[in-house]
Amino acid sequence: MKINGQPYRTIWLAQDGFRVCVIDQTRLPFRFETVTLGSAEQAATAISTMIVRGAPLIGATAAYGIALAMREDASDAALEAALALLGATRPTAVNLHWALARMRRRLAPLPPDARAETAYAEAAALCDEDVALCRAIGEHGLPLIRGLAARKPAGEAVNILTHCNAGWLATVDWGTALAPIYMAHDDGVAVHVFVDETRPRNQGAALTAYELGAHGVPHTVIVDNAGGHLMQRGQVDMAIVGTDRTTATGDVANKIGTYLKALAAKDNGVPFYVALPSPTIDWSLSDGFAIPIEERSAREVTHLAGLDETGEVGQFRVVAPGSPAANPAFDVTPARLVTALITERGVCAASRDGLAGLFPDLVRGAAA
Amino acid sequence: MKINGQPYRTIWLAQDGFRVCVIDQTRLPFRFETVTLGSAEQAATAISTMIVRGAPLIGATAAYGIALAMREDASDAALEAALALLGATRPTAVNLHWALARMRRRLAPLPPDARAETAYAEAAALCDEDVALCRAIGEHGLPLIRGLAARKPAGEAVNILTHCNAGWLATVDWGTALAPIYMAHDDGVAVHVFVDETRPRNQGAALTAYELGAHGVPHTVIVDNAGGHLMQRGQVDMAIVGTDRTTATGDVANKIGTYLKALAAKDNGVPFYVALPSPTIDWSLSDGFAIPIEERSAREVTHLAGLDETGEVGQFRVVAPGSPAANPAFDVTPARLVTALITERGVCAASRDGLAGLFPDLVRGAAA
Repeated sequence: MKINGQPYRTIWLAQDGFRVCVIDQTRLPFRFETVTLGSAEQAATAISTMIVRGAPLIGATAAYGIALAMREDASDAALEAALALLGATRPTAVNLHWALARMRRRLAPLPPDARAETAYAEAAALCDEDVALCRAIGEHGLPLIRGLAARKPAGEAVNILTHCNAGWLATVDWGTALAPIYMAHDDGVAVHVFVDETRPRNQGAALTAYELGAHGVPHTVIVDNAGGHLMQRGQVDMAIVGTDRTTATGDVANKIGTYLKALAAKDNGVPFYVALPSPTIDWSLSDGFAIPIEERSAREVTHLAGLDETGEVGQFRVVAPGSPAANPAFDVTPARLVTALITERGVCAASRDGLAGLFPDLVRGAAA
Repeated sequence: MKINGQPYRTIWLAQDGFRVCVIDQTRLPFRFETVTLGSAEQAATAISTMIVRGAPLIGATAAYGIALAMREDASDAALEAALALLGATRPTAVNLHWALARMRRRLAPLPPDARAETAYAEAAALCDEDVALCRAIGEHGLPLIRGLAARKPAGEAVNILTHCNAGWLATVDWGTALAPIYMAHDDGVAVHVFVDETRPRNQGAALTAYELGAHGVPHTVIVDNAGGHLMQRGQVDMAIVGTDRTTATGDVANKIGTYLKALAAKDNGVPFYVALPSPTIDWSLSDGFAIPIEERSAREVTHLAGLDETGEVGQFRVVAPGSPAANPAFDVTPARLVTALITERGVCAASRDGLAGLFPDLVRGAAA
């Protein structure tokens, strides 16, 4: 997608052909800065300090981290050390381990002197595949937006609500929930996005608003409390969100607060879509409430990052001193509240039959 | 209620017997400071700058503002000037105009030299009546909490979720939604309150958490996104919120986001109560969606007040620069989502019949 007219991915090779550039997402939305990673250690730090975040981008960064390691030392020992180093950065990220396992599978059988070149090629392929996956989600979601646009009076934008950041900053390009929106915008369909700020980490107000603004997509930031009211008043035509894990039956674990918006969508007849690449489907689960919910630091609730009046970025306490806080990071939206799932193979019902119809090759072995 | 063991109201006479003390709520939760008001002008400024806020407290401050004016000059012209000055501070606050109309009705027929003393007596009576109203709400809500406590295993607290600040800081004492909670706590019933932070103005994280903590009531601050998840997991036994306006049919306009929590409560079988003094009932309305919803400044969404790392209170931008924001301040919770209304006369169904049963003297003339 574009930043002020210039096309970007979230990760790319430096001009020297071996170092790896990423956008420093800890500085967004107040600063646009890139970081150049020259070693596996630097890649690991970029992941653990959340310079890069979003499951697909974490996987891509880890893959390039292996390539950087192989360029320095392509021995078996060095490969295993790099895999261990990068694998320890964000223990719960599924894509991270998937990407590292793929790199090991590809590189371990090779003679050491062939590993560096192959690692770069594999990391690049992994990135390109992620872009293709997200683009396919966009292409399958686009007709849903076009369908709503066709029913709007001329000149009126389709109003789409989204939660958290499931945009291109979380992936290599396009994003998941935002892919259909970017595609509609680029194709000349008038869209306007209501962006939930998404407390506690404010990824909506910080990242989604930033990337939509930088690409030129009309949008409005709202507090997480406001979406239900907007739906009641007919100001939301559809909702599209991402997901961290989806069961074989279509239950969706996503950023805390997603469930509340799904309830409001149901109550007001607003279609509620979940966009997902198939790797986020957990075929072993048939009940969303079996998904463990991460309890994160209370400090994410009590403190916020912001720009002060002198233009400095800092951390600020917003909760009464002494008051404890709880911080469940995800919630589960039952399949009954999901209008449909938008995947790289098409749109399907949020149900076992719906998913099995699109992914007959993957559904085998799924929980009964 | 108490602050660190010392009983307080939100407004009281200074030791000199004529000036009026209030807690500076713009400094909470980071500073506890009181302000002494010596003139009608100072009372008006305290209201307009939100040193005092909450409809009942605004009304009480305005009443004392008239008393302060009468002490300086009790002429007809001075009375009318003070009424106009104070009436212009917060044009949408119903209690403000109700309190000022009451002061005019009481004072205008009197000879000027009797007005000051009567004004102080009337303002004090108005405060005492507000305390009695809130205490009655607490007494009627208390059995609901006791009922839940009786079904909990020994030693387990009743978990109550609340939104925004409907506590004693918004009234003269006790509060509305928090009155039954304070009463239960003071009576030895184990309660624990989940406090929605309540973006954009964070009255939950700032004021509700502060006043519960100062009185010693166990509580946990959560982001507005978290309540649905907690209800899904059985961690909330009941919800109690306040209201800014209630229709004759039991629809409830309250702080933005209330509707989302009511939906989640319904979806999870959690009782959802609304506490209200009868003056907030608008007998002329039968449809909550006819209540005008105030659209407030986008800056409340883009910026937050917080304590920086050096201990200074400041304003901080949390939204991507350049992104617009929308800020609807209230939403409407339809009566079908409200388990019951807790009023100063008792608990009733959120319906025309429910309200008419408790308030037969007020219902006459209500919208059909």
